[in-house]
Amino acid sequence: MASQPFAGVLVPVLTPFTAAGEPDAGRFVAFCRWLLDQGADGLAIFGTTSEANSMSAGERMDLLDRLVAAGIPPAKLMPGTGACSITEAATLIRHAVGHGCGGVLMLPPFYYKGMTEQGIYDFIAAVIDRVGSPALRMYLYHIPPQTMIPFTVELVGKLIKAYPGSVVGLKDSSGDWNNTKALLDAYAGSGFAIFPGSEVFLLDGLRHGGVGCITATGNVNVPGIRKVYENWRTPQADALQAEITLARKTIQAYPMVPALKRIVAHFHDDPAWAAVRPPMERLSEPQSASLLADLAKIGFTLGERRREAAE
Amino acid sequence: MASQPFAGVLVPVLTPFTAAGEPDAGRFVAFCRWLLDQGADGLAIFGTTSEANSMSAGERMDLLDRLVAAGIPPAKLMPGTGACSITEAATLIRHAVGHGCGGVLMLPPFYYKGMTEQGIYDFIAAVIDRVGSPALRMYLYHIPPQTMIPFTVELVGKLIKAYPGSVVGLKDSSGDWNNTKALLDAYAGSGFAIFPGSEVFLLDGLRHGGVGCITATGNVNVPGIRKVYENWRTPQADALQAEITLARKTIQAYPMVPALKRIVAHFHDDPAWAAVRPPMERLSEPQSASLLADLAKIGFTLGERRREAAE
Repeated sequence: MASQPFAGVLVPVLTPFTAAGEPDAGRFVAFCRWLLDQGADGLAIFGTTSEANSMSAGERMDLLDRLVAAGIPPAKLMPGTGACSITEAATLIRHAVGHGCGGVLMLPPFYYKGMTEQGIYDFIAAVIDRVGSPALRMYLYHIPPQTMIPFTVELVGKLIKAYPGSVVGLKDSSGDWNNTKALLDAYAGSGFAIFPGSEVFLLDGLRHGGVGCITATGNVNVPGIRKVYENWRTPQADALQAEITLARKTIQAYPMVPALKRIVAHFHDDPAWAAVRPPMERLSEPQSASLLADLAKIGFTLGERRREAAE
Repeated sequence: MASQPFAGVLVPVLTPFTAAGEPDAGRFVAFCRWLLDQGADGLAIFGTTSEANSMSAGERMDLLDRLVAAGIPPAKLMPGTGACSITEAATLIRHAVGHGCGGVLMLPPFYYKGMTEQGIYDFIAAVIDRVGSPALRMYLYHIPPQTMIPFTVELVGKLIKAYPGSVVGLKDSSGDWNNTKALLDAYAGSGFAIFPGSEVFLLDGLRHGGVGCITATGNVNVPGIRKVYENWRTPQADALQAEITLARKTIQAYPMVPALKRIVAHFHDDPAWAAVRPPMERLSEPQSASLLADLAKIGFTLGERRREAAE
């Protein structure tokens, strides 16, 4: 197994859009910097939470160019490079590797349903072969609720075996702890980095060989989630986990991406942040009010670090 | 309702790939020409059957450039321009409209699941607005088995009402005659062009106001399918329909795209045609032998026109 560039709390960064619906590079750079200041261990830009698949390949590459030009350390970046075609995926990965990104997060091809495991294997293998770079560190992105195409435990094993220097980890957004545990039991021992796709499973994951989490709510709760990561061997771990689980469940009672953007708009005093790109819809005013009231009830804030940074 | 550029038998053209896995423009041009010689009324290039979503936007635009440069009439072309992002879809449509294509076939955004009807509406509206061309003729592409995102009867009505000059038809690949009939009952009377996505529903569709079909098996059976289209008001119609239904069902007992490519490879004496791009897999040798034996049993050939053309 190759060296592991990532561990801890990674954030699939929300993508801000302008009033005209264009990616807002200025706000994006500032938000990425703020997340790192909050203690994020890595930025999984261009994930599902980032509305990456609502952007063209060109728009994604342009935003990455802007981040790097602005001084965000590429080693901290794990851009999503998923695409339905081998050619587009390879283009996105070459661009990311060319910038020195720490890794890339790779969806399976997600248009055609009912494909065989061999077909998915051949797709990923063709992408890696086409990229042809020893610098590539690929994290598989298992998110069957959106893709309907799984990276099964068996398929992950085949890919690790064929590409031990390139296929170095996985984000499990199945929402199914049994699946995460099966992956941990099978591959964590050999140094394969497994990140649950929700902080709800952070403590369980760490106790079974996981290395952190990559979670949407990191956009608004890095300090809370990092407390679990930093203290998972202590007697406080379960209580800390209960706190972040409560925050997560409060937020995910609403459509996740619009809800997170509304929270950012509120706590950063920047209403423009609420914009989403279709097919997503922004929260209605009653939904927004209800969400913010629910968060107030549990005493949710953006965390101490933010207040320090603002002072 | 705007004028209708298409009716009859349209073919979602298979895309040939070279041994290296690249789109094979030479074979593609020759095959499109052959399909038109066979009597195809239009070519719905870059559909699901075309493995369009296994190609980058650039690869699709390059193939369209090559077709037009080779003299294939753009008015006969209905390229698929579906993409998950407004920006990529608009780029593909502008390119097609710029070439004078008769129309475009438009998927809903297909990455995110569970989106609202309003969100899908906003996506399509944003694409049409961004293209901003009175020459656009858009056919909605309803294929929930792949996208999981429907163009519901209500949503179609909203789009027709908002964009009567642009949203002029629909391909229904739901495989559900009740859905096709509901669409026909609601919108065929006003001149909205509805194409079932399989010739199995061709005769039923024509009898209820449909205007033809857009069907994968058109790649290997234009003459047979056109016989139903030309004779649907005659006493022979049901018998002719039974013949093409039998051929369809024989072929779709196998994975459709690899099976069609294998049939083309066989009847055109060109083994290279069997290649697919991952995540699809080509048929195994036993599957191929079984498919060709099944077709021989029902006396299937590529039809009389092909033999004439070859002489």
